[in-house]
Amino acid sequence: MHRNILIQEIKQKGTYLCVGLDTDITKIPKHLQQQPNAIVEFNKAIIDATKEHCVSYKINTAFYEAMGVKGWEAMEETVAYIPSSHLKIADAKRGDIGNTSWQYAKAFFETIPFDAITVAPYMGEDSIRPFLEYENKWTIVLGLTSNKGARDFEMLKLVNDNITNITEDESASLRSEYLYEKVMHKVAQWGTPNNLMFVVGATQATEFDNIRNILPDHFFLVPGVGFQGGSLEDISKHAMNKDCGILVNASRAIIYAGVDENFAVEAEVIAQQYQVEMKNYLKS
Amino acid sequence: MHRNILIQEIKQKGTYLCVGLDTDITKIPKHLQQQPNAIVEFNKAIIDATKEHCVSYKINTAFYEAMGVKGWEAMEETVAYIPSSHLKIADAKRGDIGNTSWQYAKAFFETIPFDAITVAPYMGEDSIRPFLEYENKWTIVLGLTSNKGARDFEMLKLVNDNITNITEDESASLRSEYLYEKVMHKVAQWGTPNNLMFVVGATQATEFDNIRNILPDHFFLVPGVGFQGGSLEDISKHAMNKDCGILVNASRAIIYAGVDENFAVEAEVIAQQYQVEMKNYLKS
Repeated sequence: MHRNILIQEIKQKGTYLCVGLDTDITKIPKHLQQQPNAIVEFNKAIIDATKEHCVSYKINTAFYEAMGVKGWEAMEETVAYIPSSHLKIADAKRGDIGNTSWQYAKAFFETIPFDAITVAPYMGEDSIRPFLEYENKWTIVLGLTSNKGARDFEMLKLVNDNITNITEDESASLRSEYLYEKVMHKVAQWGTPNNLMFVVGATQATEFDNIRNILPDHFFLVPGVGFQGGSLEDISKHAMNKDCGILVNASRAIIYAGVDENFAVEAEVIAQQYQVEMKNYLKS
Repeated sequence: MHRNILIQEIKQKGTYLCVGLDTDITKIPKHLQQQPNAIVEFNKAIIDATKEHCVSYKINTAFYEAMGVKGWEAMEETVAYIPSSHLKIADAKRGDIGNTSWQYAKAFFETIPFDAITVAPYMGEDSIRPFLEYENKWTIVLGLTSNKGARDFEMLKLVNDNITNITEDESASLRSEYLYEKVMHKVAQWGTPNNLMFVVGATQATEFDNIRNILPDHFFLVPGVGFQGGSLEDISKHAMNKDCGILVNASRAIIYAGVDENFAVEAEVIAQQYQVEMKNYLKS
């Protein structure tokens, strides 16, 4: 999906909501659990109920892989059901040597026609490049994630040995660069704001002023509102740019809003609440 | 698989070879490509031909995912065919927030009964813990990989702000710690040499003296001999410990050794060459 179309969808609908389909067979309503194609039936109902209120769906591959072949089938069927107007994200956190990343790119851009995939940066350039080579597809690289473990490595400070021709002041600030900042600086050189996004957790709102300085034009995929405790207001205030520039994901808060036959209606209520709030932030 | 059994297998057979089943439908012999279950037929023939010469098989999930549902089926069938005497590794490079990593652990330790999975460390502790909670299973965390991109982030130097009660000399050495070293130091605290290994590329032989200082007892999964150019001799010299302590993986060099009907025999020849060489290193 082209960046302009994504921006147009956001502005027309007044929402930058991404609905996360982290569908867990043990958590969907009891009356569905016994059906042969329960996951797909659940997902279809959620998609029908929320599609007017969001611009994207994110499929967390782990939940499908946990079910083996049946899960993989459910993932394919679900992607096929998502309207083409919506950005289809494989939340897969893949990344390997170039030779292997090409296979992952094929898996999620061709075999299953997602528009975007999340990628882990640890292994560096050749692990990310293959995804970026696809036209009209998005590579969404982990920046600063929403979980507690983000402090373990992403927020480690780096020594910067390779700096020349800069002032003392610049040097001081660069010397205390976090790993996640280095990842953003470096990965941004391999792609453009038209094919590259970064994941930044909603629980990291205070870091966003700094992050916007690093990457003024890129889109960010922001998970972590709802169950993980991130604030939509804070994120929107600190992270939006003139093109909106963020996709905010909510998964459990929406898809498990209801527990009985009424689950889709209750999911819609929550998705619409997000949309109403987002419409306000888009105006201001 | 228990560590003692792995060591026993290595010593009895005189090999620490892991055969990588990175099976690509476009690269297997022409006469197999047209068969309905080509990937599984190919893998079974490779397993039959190499099992006496190796102690482990590593399935690179990317190659199977690229084929969608059929690939996932082929992965399940292949794992079921590998003898229980061999360590079955899912080379999957997974890792996500805890809630999601639990699903990946279920996928690769329960739904498909692998013995081990490779995991990316970027997201920190809660992304790795779920895998470590499984008894008799191995978590193999990326340390220093074999690819060119390893220099981009894994070999960045860290500022260490949190050091107290150490001498000046210790402080100086810790201040120049690489990210990959920090990953090893930190992740090693979350597991034990009985459930945790690290990936270190065979192209990184010179770093191994240092790595063995950090982790004297752990096993390392070492990919990158053969096509990627790492030397089995160098790796064995620098990386082995009293329990052997390494699994050396070769994929393309073995499975694509032959291109026609004779492919399995040619794969066996190469696997046996590795075994002969390894037997020598195990003696010395």
